[in-house]
Amino acid sequence: MSLASALIIGDEILTGKVQDENSVVLARMLFERGVRLSRIETISDDIETIATSVKYLSNHFDYVFTSGGIGPTHDDKTYEAIAKAFHLKMGYHEKVLEKFAEYHQLFLSGKPLNEARQKMAFLPMPCEIIQTEGLWLPLVVVKNVYILPGIPSLFEKLVNGIKHRFDGPAIERILIYTLNSEGDIAADLERIQNAFPKVAIGSYPKTSDAYKVMISLEGTDHQAVQEAAHQVEVAICGFRTFERI
Amino acid sequence: MSLASALIIGDEILTGKVQDENSVVLARMLFERGVRLSRIETISDDIETIATSVKYLSNHFDYVFTSGGIGPTHDDKTYEAIAKAFHLKMGYHEKVLEKFAEYHQLFLSGKPLNEARQKMAFLPMPCEIIQTEGLWLPLVVVKNVYILPGIPSLFEKLVNGIKHRFDGPAIERILIYTLNSEGDIAADLERIQNAFPKVAIGSYPKTSDAYKVMISLEGTDHQAVQEAAHQVEVAICGFRTFERI
Repeated sequence: MSLASALIIGDEILTGKVQDENSVVLARMLFERGVRLSRIETISDDIETIATSVKYLSNHFDYVFTSGGIGPTHDDKTYEAIAKAFHLKMGYHEKVLEKFAEYHQLFLSGKPLNEARQKMAFLPMPCEIIQTEGLWLPLVVVKNVYILPGIPSLFEKLVNGIKHRFDGPAIERILIYTLNSEGDIAADLERIQNAFPKVAIGSYPKTSDAYKVMISLEGTDHQAVQEAAHQVEVAICGFRTFERI
Repeated sequence: MSLASALIIGDEILTGKVQDENSVVLARMLFERGVRLSRIETISDDIETIATSVKYLSNHFDYVFTSGGIGPTHDDKTYEAIAKAFHLKMGYHEKVLEKFAEYHQLFLSGKPLNEARQKMAFLPMPCEIIQTEGLWLPLVVVKNVYILPGIPSLFEKLVNGIKHRFDGPAIERILIYTLNSEGDIAADLERIQNAFPKVAIGSYPKTSDAYKVMISLEGTDHQAVQEAAHQVEVAICGFRTFERI
């Protein structure tokens, strides 16, 4: 199974001004497509810090997805940092500039493509450009790094647009809910986990809901997941949907 | 200013089953208390991975806050991983066990303190125990690592309970909103940022709101923050509250 990592870039998240909504969107897409998201790093808008993380993640994972820092203002430093991470030069990408100009002509009554706006087409070279239907913003790919915007609505559109590129083994997930406490079901869960080493069994307590613990079983071996789920269900008085509790 | 880092532990976040709600709570508390949160790492429930991150973060930052992996089930490995990170032995903490027994007597009609529940008192030694009023769950501190639970309601209570321990220089924040686009205000923002190097000026576009861009000015120098904010306001037709727009 391929391994992925995410790099969330932005002081606004580290200072609590904004809550990161992008990682969960990426996590869900990758899970669905059979790619394992192994690590998320959330860091500051600082060129050195971004470059260091990109280099590390690009070397250790099959894919890196960055979020944020590709706008026109002074605090947007992601492209520059990625060029630095890979010792690449930067240059204006002609096709991206053309697309921007076209968009400005059509939707912004010909507002000038000033220096700040042109900055968004000043990219690490070489790079791949993915154009999402109906969107002016390109998705820039440098080596194994997918460079995504921080704005959640744009992030989600771009992530959905590249889904088809990822196609790992389907991961099956079964969720089981129980009214018992974690302390009372722990021994059973451990026994079943040991019997099914290929199934990942996770236990997630809730404090204010219709159930006490949600147990998740995940794996690519259909029969093992089903059998382990059945054993969990019986052992802990579990239900497959908590509406039934 | 002290530097902090956070380590969010849990496969449930990396597979998108659950959205991390704890980092933003920690980020806001640290910002209010004048501590800079510099890095968040989100990783899997794996002892080696946790130990490696804890060691790195503990060496590079004044404080580390971990979230998750301290429950009674087989997938809770944080205490063991932290012991490993610092080459510490583990042992049952007598006072914590007593507190658990007392709680079970009072609220769980004397449910047995079985092996799984006792696991939550099997801690890296030595450690500091912080008891939060009205809560049975201890906050365990090992060196500069604060070990917090993943359940958001408990996480928040424990974080609020330790606020007073952190007391850095007050950071002033002014938010300014505008109906102009980032591409049109970028040059002004950069000029003002260069004139006030001690003030962190951030620019955050919205795509579906009552304003187009939120500009944030942050710093410990009151006069510099105020003066920079005034210049931004004038340059970009900004308002201090977006309800006025």
